[in-house]
Parts: sequence; structure tokens; C-alpha cells
Amino acid sequence: MSELFNRLQPYLDKSYALSAAFTLFGWDNSTGAPRDAIGNTSRAIEILSGEMYSTLINDEVKALLKDLSTEAEQEKLTFQEKAIVKNLNKDFKELQNIPPEEFSAFSALVSRAYPVWSKAKQENDFASYAPVLQEIITYAKKFASYNQKEGQELYDVLLNKFEEGFNMEIIDDFFAKLRTALVPLVHKISEKSNFISTECLHQSYDVETQKKFCRFLAEHIGFDFNRGVIAESEHPFTTELHNHDVRITNHYHQHQLDSAIFSVIHEGGHALYEMGVADDITMTPVGGGTSMGMHESQSRLYENNLGRSLEFWEPIYCKLQEAFPEQLHRVTPEEFYKAINHASPSLIRTEADELTYSFHVMIRYEIEKMIFQGNVSVDELPALWNQKYQEYLSLTPANDTEGILQDMHWSGGDFGYFPSYALGSAIAAQIYHHLETVMPVKKHLKEGNLMPIREYLKEHIHRFGKCKNTQELLMEMTGEAFNPDYYIAYLTEKYSALYEL
Amino acid sequence: MSELFNRLQPYLDKSYALSAAFTLFGWDNSTGAPRDAIGNTSRAIEILSGEMYSTLINDEVKALLKDLSTEAEQEKLTFQEKAIVKNLNKDFKELQNIPPEEFSAFSALVSRAYPVWSKAKQENDFASYAPVLQEIITYAKKFASYNQKEGQELYDVLLNKFEEGFNMEIIDDFFAKLRTALVPLVHKISEKSNFISTECLHQSYDVETQKKFCRFLAEHIGFDFNRGVIAESEHPFTTELHNHDVRITNHYHQHQLDSAIFSVIHEGGHALYEMGVADDITMTPVGGGTSMGMHESQSRLYENNLGRSLEFWEPIYCKLQEAFPEQLHRVTPEEFYKAINHASPSLIRTEADELTYSFHVMIRYEIEKMIFQGNVSVDELPALWNQKYQEYLSLTPANDTEGILQDMHWSGGDFGYFPSYALGSAIAAQIYHHLETVMPVKKHLKEGNLMPIREYLKEHIHRFGKCKNTQELLMEMTGEAFNPDYYIAYLTEKYSALYEL
Repeated sequence: MSELFNRLQPYLDKSYALSAAFTLFGWDNSTGAPRDAIGNTSRAIEILSGEMYSTLINDEVKALLKDLSTEAEQEKLTFQEKAIVKNLNKDFKELQNIPPEEFSAFSALVSRAYPVWSKAKQENDFASYAPVLQEIITYAKKFASYNQKEGQELYDVLLNKFEEGFNMEIIDDFFAKLRTALVPLVHKISEKSNFISTECLHQSYDVETQKKFCRFLAEHIGFDFNRGVIAESEHPFTTELHNHDVRITNHYHQHQLDSAIFSVIHEGGHALYEMGVADDITMTPVGGGTSMGMHESQSRLYENNLGRSLEFWEPIYCKLQEAFPEQLHRVTPEEFYKAINHASPSLIRTEADELTYSFHVMIRYEIEKMIFQGNVSVDELPALWNQKYQEYLSLTPANDTEGILQDMHWSGGDFGYFPSYALGSAIAAQIYHHLETVMPVKKHLKEGNLMPIREYLKEHIHRFGKCKNTQELLMEMTGEAFNPDYYIAYLTEKYSALYEL
Repeated sequence: MSELFNRLQPYLDKSYALSAAFTLFGWDNSTGAPRDAIGNTSRAIEILSGEMYSTLINDEVKALLKDLSTEAEQEKLTFQEKAIVKNLNKDFKELQNIPPEEFSAFSALVSRAYPVWSKAKQENDFASYAPVLQEIITYAKKFASYNQKEGQELYDVLLNKFEEGFNMEIIDDFFAKLRTALVPLVHKISEKSNFISTECLHQSYDVETQKKFCRFLAEHIGFDFNRGVIAESEHPFTTELHNHDVRITNHYHQHQLDSAIFSVIHEGGHALYEMGVADDITMTPVGGGTSMGMHESQSRLYENNLGRSLEFWEPIYCKLQEAFPEQLHRVTPEEFYKAINHASPSLIRTEADELTYSFHVMIRYEIEKMIFQGNVSVDELPALWNQKYQEYLSLTPANDTEGILQDMHWSGGDFGYFPSYALGSAIAAQIYHHLETVMPVKKHLKEGNLMPIREYLKEHIHRFGKCKNTQELLMEMTGEAFNPDYYIAYLTEKYSALYEL
């Protein structure tokens, strides 16, 4: 047992408590708080955020971390404690370069920004959002510059923050590889655009009944309602206080059945990750998913590789028909399977099919690169966005609501996050391929028994939290480092069969 | 401007932010958190609560408060600043006597206790609640003893905490006066128990429609949904982060229409108080209602003096009929008015009529007195409760769910709070009498225009927060100190007319 680590514990405890409060304010702002609350509330959030900062960034913690990093002390630490020290050292280095008053002001800014973005999206009014977005970008650039290594590109600082060891070079390569493989496939499928009908999904579906069915779906994949809740928000998301309090949101559309269904499976995948973190690390700095890419792999594994398979729906499609008899009694499981896998260039990322999804990520990635390389102003963004959609997907958004305003991430200051979405899909395909080598995945799905899948993921990924990184987890589980080939093979095979190419 | 007060400001800010987080956790635990969350979450709450404690209880604040209390410094302070210093001095004296680790442990205990009470009530299982209640009582006694003055009774410490200047002597007198006047009235009415029928309220009322109508009612009395929300919880309550974020809960019963209706008006009255606090004090230590009794006067003024009058319903009863045409089309406004004012001894305080309400308060007051005088053990409480109900109201609860487990207050450590409920009703009657001397209250009600009433209360009570105490507010507004005679006259007149005595 390390005496030194015990002296670190009160700082960890206080930091955890403040971040839990911070998380709860965030959840509340998006799901429950009254409209006019945020002005005053952001003041409280700002103060808590300043406290959170000074709890970890101070001379006592600095000295403790230094002493805990010596070889002699490291030998006294448990596996989890070592991971905590490593993780804190990284955060410490990142945070100590940011002046505390800027950190607080930025936290208050992003709290204020969410409702501004939400209103701007609702009213198709990018101009009302532009000034606050400009402020956020200025902060993001400034913060990134504080942590820029010599010769490092500004945007690489951000990419590395979300996915350790990744940079523009790797991601440019990754997208190039995908482009080479997917563009011809998308091209062929576009020529057969009416081959699959999605009409059955766009009938009128009662929202309250959708809510009930989504609750069933969450339970079906293993979401534990004693440890989690589902609420509503503008854009679905997952957040957590600890492994016994994991919260997801959903958004229901009367005329688009698949939207809420696949959102709940997607967020449910995120939630299973957080619910699966081990009890002894859940309230520590390593108590969450290891990276954005790995997190997204879990959500997209459930949403796509599992959730959009014929086998997944085999035991439960009848329940969906029971919920909506009038709308679905004549729709066969195969027709439904085809409809939910229809591929077609579209405007909204979260509603995109599996095949064209990466293009949405690529577009935002390219725009973010330009922002951080100083090649574009905020006012030019909507036009740039529209131009890229035309270029890659041959579509132009009718307005900014279905264009550049569609996602909340920038309002939270999350630049460099988006590539993880595409990376997540690729990791999901790699994991799915591995799962099939260790268990009869399709048989489990057909039997409606998803527990072996969740248990395997919990055992090999979830429980470790941030104690192992993405590459370590992949290596130990599959015997192989990250490999996007599985993703390309999976998409090619699935969509060739669907469209009989 | 006081330089010294400026030095106090950062402590006030941090204390406010932590208490806002604390409030939000409390709201979330009762309305949104998953069932199994509280074990871990209470650890975070405990830490925040310890922080809240040490923010105000430290040598710097002690020295500042001492310096700010000198005559010379007091002259430099604004009215609000003086009130803040006075209030902090009081809290400081109370808190500094409690060891910080006990304060934190108690906060965590009451967080854990809420779901235990809630489950015990649901399952009629007092025994499962008894150990945690015993722990809470032990803390409450210990904390009270820390602040006991020489010769002061333990329970008087608690009474004074909620209502400055009140003690058992005054409250015993108050209840004696009420008993003398009300017992004969209740007796006469009991003899005419079938004179008023409440059947119309106990038909089947769709809960979703009730929710919509309750929302309308809240708006009708002036609840601002841009600054507030309504959620559901086991027992209705009001809480607030500041004057732009005031939250109430409700509880809906399919076969008891008046329950949710009068709960929303009651909690709405509390909410109007908090929404009316002035902007410049809302996030300070004097930014809430001045006392429990004054708070309760606002909720009961709206619930009873206004909300249960014939004039209140004159312009809106038709809307209730529209919401429930099948149930109410044959019920006249007069029949409805009589039904909602039916008086009869009953078991549940929150569902009690205006007339017998005070008896419920009196019973708990007497039991609390016995607990703090050491005359009763926790295990004896259910029997004692049932015995007193038989004695005063000639009723015995069939089980503890409708007996001693009915209210959440003890699970939150709130002993000495209950007398304020009766006091609040008496203050409400005094204020109502005054309102009629300064404006045509009944005319406003008939016109469905409740804004003049809210504005008057805001101007003379709400905006001051804790800057003036109950007696000061009453004196300045009505020209008279607290006087329970108005309450007795009001009840006697109203119920004599209703029951044609």
C-alpha cells in the first residue's frame, strides 16, 4: 500500500464530487431545467468548474504526482492506482497550461452556448449562434496552443486529446482508404436508389408508443433501469455520474420510426460500457470509457453490426408489429430489415445509413481542419458546409438547421471529436468479427439472448475503464491492433448482398 | 462600499455554487435518478456538503464577520449586505458548533434515508425505516444539543431554527387557542357528516388530463414556466436554484381529483415566493423565503384562502368541466365548491381539509416533543401515532403507510418544522384579511386576474427574501404583528356558512 497514494485520495474524492455535480448540471440543462435558468445557473457552474480546476492543479498534487511517478513508488501501486497516476499526469500537463480564470470562463461559456445553439437550430438562425461559436473557437484554439508541442499542428493537439496517438496523418490515411473502397460501392447503390423502399418507416407512429418500445429495446440489449434512466433532449446523448447512474436521452419523430429506435440502441451501447465499468474504479479518474473511439465502437456495434441485422429483429419484430399493428402488419421482417438498411446520401449525420455515415464525419473533419489551420472564418462556415455536401454526397441542405447546425458538439467546445465517430465504426466491425470467432453471435441474436455479448464486452473492455487504452484492449482481446480492413469488408459484403450487386 | 464585504464575496459565491449543486442533487434524487444510484451518489453529496461547510466555517470568514459586525463597518453596508452579515452570523454560530465530519456524515445519511423512507412507505414497512430514522434522530439531538443555550429545552432549539423567536410555550398556547375554538366546530360538523358530498371528486380522472389541467392552474396563479418546471415525486415539494429556476413536483391520483389540483396550487404558492425574490439577492444567503411559517403562509393562502373559494373557480370551473366533461357536466360550481371544502376527520395530512388540518400538525408536534424530551423510542412511534389519531380525530390508521410513514420530513432530518404548517395557515388568514382591505380580492378572482395579488405579495413580502423576518413583514404590510384571531374567525365563518350551522 502506498502512503503517498493515500495522500492523493482526498484530492481525487473532491475532484470526483465536483465533476459529478458538473455532470448533473449538464444533464439537467439539456433535459429538465427551465428556459430562463441558465443565466444565473451558469454562474454556479463557473464557480464549481474553477474549484474542479484548483482541486487538481495545485502544488501539492503536482509534488505528489511527481513522487508517485518514481520507479520505487510505482512498484507499490496497484494496477488501478498506476492507471490513475498516469491519467492524472496527462490531465495535469494539459490543464496546468491553462490559466484558471480562462478555464472557468470557458466552462461558463459552453453552458450558455447550448441553449443558444438549440434555439438557433430550431429557428434556422446560424447568425444568432455565430458570435458564441466564434468565442468557443477562440478558446479552443488558445487552449490547444497552450499544449502544442514544437512542430505539432494545432488540430493534432485536439485529435490526440480524444484518441491518444492519433493525428491528421493517420486520419487522412484512414479516410483515404475508406474513400477508395466506399465511393464505388456508394456509386453502384445510388444507381439502384429505388431498389429498397423505406416507406414503411415513414407512416404515422404514435410517440408515446415509440417511447414504450424504445424502453423495451434498451432492456433487450441489457440496459439496467435500476441503474439508468431515459429522458428526452434535442439530440440524443449519454452521460453518467458513476456505473450505477448512467443516463441516456432520445428524440422521437412521429414520421420516422427508425430514428428513435436506433438512437436508443446507439446510446444504449454507450450506456452498457459505462454500466460495465468495475465498481472499484467507477468514481475515480479512470472510471469511464477509455477513449471516444472505443466508446463509439460500443454504441455503433449495438446500433449497426447487431441492431441492423436480420437476426437481431427475428425474435422481436413481432413485438414491434404488436405495438404498431396498423402500420406494420403487412410488412415482413425481411422488408423491415431492408428498410432499416437502406443506403442513400442524406443530410443528417445521426440519421445517416451505415454506408454513407463516414462521409458526414469526413466533411466535419475537413472543416475543423480548416478552422484550426486558420483557413476559414465562422461566417463562411454554412456556405463551406453546403459546398462540401454537394461535393461528396451530391446534396445541398435547404437550410442550416439540416446543415451546419445539426450537431451540438461545437457548442460544447468539442473539436477533434468527430473523427472518433468513423474510427468507432471501424473498431466496431473489428470487434464484431472477433465476437463471431468466440461465440455464436447470430444464434444468440436469434434467441433474443444478448447477455453473452454484453458479458463478453464487459469482461474484455468495459470493466477496465481507462486502465487500458484502445490499442491495448484490441490487442489483448483480438490479438491484433486497430485494423480498418474489417470495416471495409463488412460494409462491402453487407451492402453487396442487400443491393444484390 | 465596504472593502471588507468585497473580501467576503468569494466565500459567498463558492457557498452559493455548492449549495446550488446540493439542491440539484436533492431534486434529482426525488424526481429523476435511477433507483440504485444513491449509494455511490451520496458519497459525492457528502463531499460537496463537507466543502459547503468548510467554505463558511473557517477562520477567515470568522474574522471577516467579526469585523463586519462593528458599528463603523455596518454603516458602510447596504440594507442587503447588512442582512447577509446578520444571517451569516446566525448560521456561523449554529454551524461552528457542529464538527465538520458529523455534518458531512449527516448529509450523506439524509440522502440515503429518502429512498429508504419512500420504499418503507410503499411497502408499509416501518421496521425497515426505523434504524435509519433512529440514526437521524440521534444526529438531530446531537446537533441541537451543540446549540442549546443554558436552560433551553432541546426541542426549542429546533423550533427556533425554523421560526425565529418561537418556542414550545408560544406554540402550546397557539394550539390551545385553536383547540378551544375548533373542537366545538369540528364536533358540530361531524354531526352533519353527510351534508356535503365529495363523490364527484372520486370518479375516474385520467392522469394525463389532470397533468395538463394542473399546468393550466399553475399558470393561472402566475407560475412562470420559463423560470420553473413541474415534475413528479412521491410527495409534492418545491425547491429552487435561484429566482429563475424554481421547481415544484406533484403526485397524481386517478380517483382523487382534488389531490393534484390543490397540491399544484399549494406548491405554486411556494414557487411564487421564490420567483418573486429580488434579482440582487437571489444568489446570496438571504435569497430565499424568510421562514418556514411565512413560506407556508404563501402556499396555504393560494391553496385555501384563494384556491378553495367560490370566486376562484367562477371563471375556470368551465375549463375543468371541458377537461372532464363526462365526470363533471352535471356537477354545478356550487356543488364542486362544497365538495372541495368538505370537512371530515381523516388520516393523511396533505389531503386534510382546512378545518382539521391543524390537528395533524398538532399530533406530529406532540410526538416530536416527546422524542426530544426522551419520552419515547423509535419502535414505539407507530403505536403512539395511532393512539393520538384515535384521541384527536377518532380514527386509527389501517397501516403505517397512511400513518406515521406518510410524510418525508423526518427522513430529511426536519424536526421542529411541522408547527410552521399550522402557523403558516394562521399567517395566511391574517394576510388574506389584509388583502381584502387594500384590493377587491373577490372581484379579481372572479375575473380570473390573479396578477394584482401576486404583485402585491411580491412587493410586500417576496422580494425581500430573508432581509426582513416574519414579524417585520407582517408589521410593515398589515400594521399588526402575528395574530391568530383572523385564522379562527376565517374558519368559523367559512365553515358555519358551508354547513349552515
